[in-house]
Amino acid sequence: MVTSPSNAVDAPSRRERANALRALAMDAVQKANSGHPGMPMGMADIAEVLWTDFLCHNPQNPRWPNRDRFVLSNGHGSMLLYGLLHLSGYGLSMEELRQFRQFGAKTPGHPEFDLDIGVETTTGPLGQGLSNAVGMALAEKTLAATFNRPGFPVVDHYTYAFLGDGCLMEGISHEACSLAGTWQLGKLICFYDDNGISIDGDVAGWFGDDTPARFEAYGWHVLPGVDGHDPDAVGAAIEAARADDRPSLICCKTVIGKGAPNKQGSESTHGAPLGADEVAAARDTLGWEWPPFEVPADLREFWDATTAGVASEAEWQELMTGYTAEHPELAAELKRRLAGELPADWNSFADAALAAIAADPQKEATRKSSLRALNAFAPALPELFGGSADLTGSNLTLHNGSVVLTAQEPAGNYLHFGVREFGMTGILNGIALHGGYIPYGGTFLVFADYARNALRLAALMGIRQIAVLTHDSIGLGEDGPTHQPVEHVASLQVMPNMRVWRPCDAFETAVAWRDAIERPNGPTSLVLTRQGVPPQQRDAQQCADVSRGAYVLRGTGMPDLILIASGSEVALAVSAAELLEAEGHAVRVVSMPCMKQFLEQSEDYREAVLPAAVARRLAVEAGSPHLWHRFVGQDGRIVGLDRFGESAPAAELFEHFGFTPEKVAVLARELLAAT
Amino acid sequence: MVTSPSNAVDAPSRRERANALRALAMDAVQKANSGHPGMPMGMADIAEVLWTDFLCHNPQNPRWPNRDRFVLSNGHGSMLLYGLLHLSGYGLSMEELRQFRQFGAKTPGHPEFDLDIGVETTTGPLGQGLSNAVGMALAEKTLAATFNRPGFPVVDHYTYAFLGDGCLMEGISHEACSLAGTWQLGKLICFYDDNGISIDGDVAGWFGDDTPARFEAYGWHVLPGVDGHDPDAVGAAIEAARADDRPSLICCKTVIGKGAPNKQGSESTHGAPLGADEVAAARDTLGWEWPPFEVPADLREFWDATTAGVASEAEWQELMTGYTAEHPELAAELKRRLAGELPADWNSFADAALAAIAADPQKEATRKSSLRALNAFAPALPELFGGSADLTGSNLTLHNGSVVLTAQEPAGNYLHFGVREFGMTGILNGIALHGGYIPYGGTFLVFADYARNALRLAALMGIRQIAVLTHDSIGLGEDGPTHQPVEHVASLQVMPNMRVWRPCDAFETAVAWRDAIERPNGPTSLVLTRQGVPPQQRDAQQCADVSRGAYVLRGTGMPDLILIASGSEVALAVSAAELLEAEGHAVRVVSMPCMKQFLEQSEDYREAVLPAAVARRLAVEAGSPHLWHRFVGQDGRIVGLDRFGESAPAAELFEHFGFTPEKVAVLARELLAAT
Repeated sequence: MVTSPSNAVDAPSRRERANALRALAMDAVQKANSGHPGMPMGMADIAEVLWTDFLCHNPQNPRWPNRDRFVLSNGHGSMLLYGLLHLSGYGLSMEELRQFRQFGAKTPGHPEFDLDIGVETTTGPLGQGLSNAVGMALAEKTLAATFNRPGFPVVDHYTYAFLGDGCLMEGISHEACSLAGTWQLGKLICFYDDNGISIDGDVAGWFGDDTPARFEAYGWHVLPGVDGHDPDAVGAAIEAARADDRPSLICCKTVIGKGAPNKQGSESTHGAPLGADEVAAARDTLGWEWPPFEVPADLREFWDATTAGVASEAEWQELMTGYTAEHPELAAELKRRLAGELPADWNSFADAALAAIAADPQKEATRKSSLRALNAFAPALPELFGGSADLTGSNLTLHNGSVVLTAQEPAGNYLHFGVREFGMTGILNGIALHGGYIPYGGTFLVFADYARNALRLAALMGIRQIAVLTHDSIGLGEDGPTHQPVEHVASLQVMPNMRVWRPCDAFETAVAWRDAIERPNGPTSLVLTRQGVPPQQRDAQQCADVSRGAYVLRGTGMPDLILIASGSEVALAVSAAELLEAEGHAVRVVSMPCMKQFLEQSEDYREAVLPAAVARRLAVEAGSPHLWHRFVGQDGRIVGLDRFGESAPAAELFEHFGFTPEKVAVLARELLAAT
Repeated sequence: MVTSPSNAVDAPSRRERANALRALAMDAVQKANSGHPGMPMGMADIAEVLWTDFLCHNPQNPRWPNRDRFVLSNGHGSMLLYGLLHLSGYGLSMEELRQFRQFGAKTPGHPEFDLDIGVETTTGPLGQGLSNAVGMALAEKTLAATFNRPGFPVVDHYTYAFLGDGCLMEGISHEACSLAGTWQLGKLICFYDDNGISIDGDVAGWFGDDTPARFEAYGWHVLPGVDGHDPDAVGAAIEAARADDRPSLICCKTVIGKGAPNKQGSESTHGAPLGADEVAAARDTLGWEWPPFEVPADLREFWDATTAGVASEAEWQELMTGYTAEHPELAAELKRRLAGELPADWNSFADAALAAIAADPQKEATRKSSLRALNAFAPALPELFGGSADLTGSNLTLHNGSVVLTAQEPAGNYLHFGVREFGMTGILNGIALHGGYIPYGGTFLVFADYARNALRLAALMGIRQIAVLTHDSIGLGEDGPTHQPVEHVASLQVMPNMRVWRPCDAFETAVAWRDAIERPNGPTSLVLTRQGVPPQQRDAQQCADVSRGAYVLRGTGMPDLILIASGSEVALAVSAAELLEAEGHAVRVVSMPCMKQFLEQSEDYREAVLPAAVARRLAVEAGSPHLWHRFVGQDGRIVGLDRFGESAPAAELFEHFGFTPEKVAVLARELLAAT
């Protein structure tokens, strides 16, 4: 806890300090002619108390691992965060605040993950910041349980989150907060901005929940009815929250847009500038006499957290020095993991693991290959932190070194998320953002739909997160079309910065895992079969080329026809090629487990794999054909599935929908016969 | 209420009757060697009481509009539903039960909407059936409020839903049940199968909610701790639920797989056959002496609900006869709406409305055009039932005839869903399934992600549901990349049976709305701009061709180059064409508001719009380029966006990302210069 100067004789009043946040927010929104003044003006008093008296952080080093985390889940109130960061001394200048919502500024409309200036996560899509905060608090708890030693609480910080009505209406709040209760994340402290207003107006018409009772039902410590404009009440609530070993929800009654005399308490303050007249009136009401983007020196001095922050970090560094002396190996490992670095011997370890898998070809489902890869890699990577949305035995995400985490035994590395795909993914994002872990989580590919926007935020933030998505096609069989993904590979492929792997056998699966582990700047979707697939033969060059996303798996010389396939359809393409070769055709089979990786290769490499001179091309994937047009061209053909599946044994479905070597060969012959 | 024969002297015991369901489930799963016996065996006693003593339905006419609705939200227990339907007398033969999970059977792994046999909705993706049930109960309540008259409760039925732990862990349960409480859906009665088990095992490790307290926080009537194997207790709970004017949750303690002596109470019964030995042991335990797929005559007789059902419907028909005599216009309108038919004069009305819109060209955002279209069509369509996920003023979904529905005033046609996109969409699905309404719901296009799997189920079921998805590109501007869809048009396009419209101006928007309204067998996504777009000029043929999905908007004769665009980029393409024409190039502009509609046109029409002879093609869309490769071919180019956007004013973003006539013309000239 920072020593508070708030009772010094000459300190500006708390209300003045909060008004600095209000003025910056209303002025920046007014200047941008776009934005959300209501929330910052409503939560300014709460923010002032939290950041002044409680938040332990160092603006001079936003990456200090033991800083408290602060998440603005109601991200539309971004100006509150920017005001706090600017005034506290982070690298966010007043000029950046003037440039709020302008091209290239560090002050986008909604906060975007940027540790240079202290933004811990990207928020705006409601409810997700809350799930990130749960992930951060969980990461803190388990990292502490793993690394702390008597006298050395080297991992020991709080996670604070601001929430609005919208966050609490969203379903993800249910998923994430239920888990936070189960896991007893006592250092998670959330502030509910209970202002009674959402975009459509007074929430009474559509949000009748007894929210305190709801959170008590989750096992939370709830502080209802706190006056969000009474700093003493807020401070006392935070003290109480910190003293409790359950996660806490502080329900703060606030007035949205507080200080804008004619608009406060109304949805009109939510998402639009107040207007010049109302901004002027608010200045009068608040007694804020300074022009836009000016904050008087005494307030600046008060807000500046750099001195206290440097001292806090220095104190922790001292602790780390002692810890390093007493526990040198632990300390080195903690430092490595917090830095997000793979082990020094990772490359040779991974090479050997891949070689062992290549040397042990097995017909098996790629979800089983995924488990083999996990078992191969995990011994070198204690930072792997995984789980499943209640499909552990199906996703095969529990490896030999997995230890299930519970409230009582937090030093685990495996999470039973229950049936909560979206919450799981938001929590995994939070774990990745916290640092110290490489998170992965499993569900059926079809239910990536439920988690989709959290995967998108991982891609937008550029964080390492691995989605293990099994049962990847009609090969799922009898569970039927509700559970059979058809369009999901395509819909994940079109997401920017999402890397999608659909490997064809154990070796490609292991390469995909390795690529996902080594990818520091974005998420990966591993798309895996339920059903067994045979191993393919590869020479050393082919083995090396798997990581390029596509490569020639079969066939030498310039072919008459190219078959392109991914995942379970690669073996099918190979069988079709055998039929065609027996008839004297020169056929190349290209395995394309990762379309995006291939598209990022040099033009020479792409031309070598898919020569422009060969227009006879046939792509095979038991899923949406849409993205394959690009690779087969207008003269090519696609064996895909552009309709929903059926409930039946997998083999019958493949037969019915044309995924047999014979049927593929028929189409290939048509192509070969065409002039 | 059906008169219960359950106390007749010779009637088989309730337990025997329930055991028929258990046996059918375990035997069908065993035969299929795939499926979920645990839930049917656990909930058989509850189902027996509900279907015997309470459910009002007519197996002879599964489309009887006033039937009680029964939703199996924990859809993996499909054999319970199939057993109930078969034994009650629906058109589902024992042979179909034998063919459980086999190709072409009416008994897929998870229930699929099929009114021929009484399956009310497609379930399996957990939590969504519950949201459908909320929609059905809401539809009943508002339809009753609209059409019932003193002495004529012609719309008067219950909606029952079975739920598992998984349904209640999913976030959508929070969204849907909060609304059900707010709307006071007193005729919604849910049975929570509280068996303490999910796929990963004992739920205590990941589901610590006090569920009764949680639902009380939503304003529900909760009956905790009911013994789900005690028919009297279940019956009393249903009576109490029906007597309460809040939605009811009956929490039933059950044993999963009850009757399987060695496996009951364990997750091993959830998703796999019991095995021949355990099936035999269960026969002993249950005292069920009949071979697989045999049910003795006395039990069959008991279960047969056809006589009672025919009598119930006859009673209602009598009521309708009186209603028709006293309120002929209301009755005719109710019948039309329940039949899902558009008004008799719809075509001429819609033609006139389109003509009026064509005659009043305005530069405006297509979301505003959408509101104009709604205002034009809604007076003829009282069945339009809309809402927004807390973005009413942004989505512009509230038309001049909208009346906001509340618990106290249920005869409305507009819903404030709050910030609940997934719940909204599941509820809209339920409204569509109930009948009497054409539902639509608004959110930002980017948040279609949150609702994605509910849109998928609408597509899979083939039901009429309209998603109003506004702020469709970087044109959203300052709110930044979290709110700017990039990949969303593509990701909706690849969903089977989802029709996506991205209109370029007011006229195309109105055509899109009309198409969505007239489409009986699937959902439509209307993708609309935030920013203004100019009106395009069209002759009568062009106006007629809009509904074909793509058409030549500009240019005559065989062109040197084709520009293809959709939505806000059509005007840009036209401007680029003007630049190129001034240089002497013959340029055609194709507007393609609906890719799938175009692909369904005749080959002749497609060739006429996009002649194979013209290989110089340039597609322009401020979004994912991936699907355009198909239309431009390998010689063509695409001006798209394959990365996330930025927070800045929209005009600057279009400029920055290359969406200006000048930049498009530069690429076009490169194409024209290529040999």
